[in-house]
Amino acid sequence: MPDLRRDPVVGRWVIISTERAGRPRDFFHVEPTRPSSAGLCPFCPGQEHLTPREVLAYRPQAGEANSPGWTVRVVPNKFPALQVEGDLGRVGVGLYDRMNGLGAHEVIIETADHKDTLADLPSKRIEDVLWAYRDRVVDLKRDLRFRYILVFKNHGAPAGATLEHTHSQLIALPVIPTIVMNEIEGCRTHFQQKERCIYCDIIRQEQEDTERIVAENQEFLCIAPFAARFPFEMWILPKRHAAYFEESQKGQFELLAPNLSEALRRMDRVLSRPAYNFILHTSPLHEKTDPYYHWHIEIIPKLTQVAGFEWGTGFYINPVTPEDSAKFLREADIETR
Amino acid sequence: MPDLRRDPVVGRWVIISTERAGRPRDFFHVEPTRPSSAGLCPFCPGQEHLTPREVLAYRPQAGEANSPGWTVRVVPNKFPALQVEGDLGRVGVGLYDRMNGLGAHEVIIETADHKDTLADLPSKRIEDVLWAYRDRVVDLKRDLRFRYILVFKNHGAPAGATLEHTHSQLIALPVIPTIVMNEIEGCRTHFQQKERCIYCDIIRQEQEDTERIVAENQEFLCIAPFAARFPFEMWILPKRHAAYFEESQKGQFELLAPNLSEALRRMDRVLSRPAYNFILHTSPLHEKTDPYYHWHIEIIPKLTQVAGFEWGTGFYINPVTPEDSAKFLREADIETR
Repeated sequence: MPDLRRDPVVGRWVIISTERAGRPRDFFHVEPTRPSSAGLCPFCPGQEHLTPREVLAYRPQAGEANSPGWTVRVVPNKFPALQVEGDLGRVGVGLYDRMNGLGAHEVIIETADHKDTLADLPSKRIEDVLWAYRDRVVDLKRDLRFRYILVFKNHGAPAGATLEHTHSQLIALPVIPTIVMNEIEGCRTHFQQKERCIYCDIIRQEQEDTERIVAENQEFLCIAPFAARFPFEMWILPKRHAAYFEESQKGQFELLAPNLSEALRRMDRVLSRPAYNFILHTSPLHEKTDPYYHWHIEIIPKLTQVAGFEWGTGFYINPVTPEDSAKFLREADIETR
Repeated sequence: MPDLRRDPVVGRWVIISTERAGRPRDFFHVEPTRPSSAGLCPFCPGQEHLTPREVLAYRPQAGEANSPGWTVRVVPNKFPALQVEGDLGRVGVGLYDRMNGLGAHEVIIETADHKDTLADLPSKRIEDVLWAYRDRVVDLKRDLRFRYILVFKNHGAPAGATLEHTHSQLIALPVIPTIVMNEIEGCRTHFQQKERCIYCDIIRQEQEDTERIVAENQEFLCIAPFAARFPFEMWILPKRHAAYFEESQKGQFELLAPNLSEALRRMDRVLSRPAYNFILHTSPLHEKTDPYYHWHIEIIPKLTQVAGFEWGTGFYINPVTPEDSAKFLREADIETR
């Protein structure tokens, strides 16, 4: 019998229907991401002039801006979805509301080496990428026009990446995305009833149940969530309650990097290096969500031919139980690093 | 400057960012749906034994069940996401809620001819498909375990169709999908404030503005919505206020068919027969939503490489203004029928 499960935070019901896994074209036929070929890549060292001027770069040996020698480099997106200059110009159009598409859209180039993926990097280098996210959030937060900063990664063309060279993106927005609003409301309701953070409750229950745990260290827990929308969906949660990603302790970044690395390498091993998205869910910038919101990362492998109507309805059918996903991932044979 | 627009019903903000349309791999490179090849298609006449036994069929010349001679045929899905027998078995698992995956999952085979698409059919035949939706909803509604019936269509492999022979699907659910809940709440709030249906207000404003209208007849209006998530997204709205699709008048079905046909043929013409999804948004079954909810159909062409993170964040970037989408569609040169 298939299983209907409810996400405790946003109230979304999901069908876990393993009977369908044996159907034609099942989800295991993943479209592997193609091997990289450098060519004239605008994200490669020596091509710095092909991108807009950098807003941040880590250069272990110092060196000039917009020249080689960096390990992580952040540049404005050449084709930005939003523009950083101007005012909001909020206006009603009859029944409708609109405002100017004001915001920042940046690209975090995660490594100088064209052939590496994020999962290929040593933990220390992944940590630098996380620091780059944090430094940009802290900088952009000072601009009071912005209400949310969305950090995300599209890896591989099937997941929406238009360039191969491994990178993440950041969009600073003058509005709060609906999914974040729904999470905040779910968290607030739980807190009002119980004076506890719902994600802290989830962590406690997952540590007791253990069957949905993928990877764990002193500060972070990676699980396949109870009401997973997608096969092999993973969440990474800080064990210490915290609403704002950018306010994490140094020691936490040091332990988030190996947890994220392990999750990605387990996924790469089980699914043969699939395309994937990850999304950082953190608190809106100027809202007082400390007591009840809890930042986390969602990782979603992009598996082909999962029913196409799902993004149109908000309704999900998942052909793999999260318990099975976690077991496959946990038992994958990866190098210890 | 890009434009940020808010959906008046669910409050979702969308970025309309035409600056990105000129970027590499833009949305106009659609993956065309492949031409059909019949082979051993379980939806073709003569192969009725390859599907579960039919629950409904229209046979103009009468004839036996599960034999050829039908024009529309409805069968249970051979790989159902939900199972029709059993009870709900609602249970809490610590913090979490689950229940049995109870429901119906049916396939509406829209025509006996393997090579036709829904858009290729004459209006009268599309009307029969709509009657089949309606007849199945009316029948399943009597089962009080169900709270929502989702009617949708995945056309073409990129939109999630696993079989070529043109068909729609129906899923009867013991829960209400989140997106429908959000719509209902948005409608209820508007009604409480103004004692008017928000979709009726939208229709009135669109008829005044005219620039987002794609097709219109006496009973139906097809528009590109103001805060469209996707290029060439279309909504079809009945002009008369009505919460329940299945309670439409006969004369309405007669006029919905040509409006839907026209929308699909305009889309086929502009986008070279793309893959697409459509979703019927209708009221939950046993809720008293008459005064404020308004059923409608959403049509979403599946264009490749629209940013892949969108279904993970609920946040949308649309590279084509709905005004341009509507203009392209409205001006497409199609046969009058």
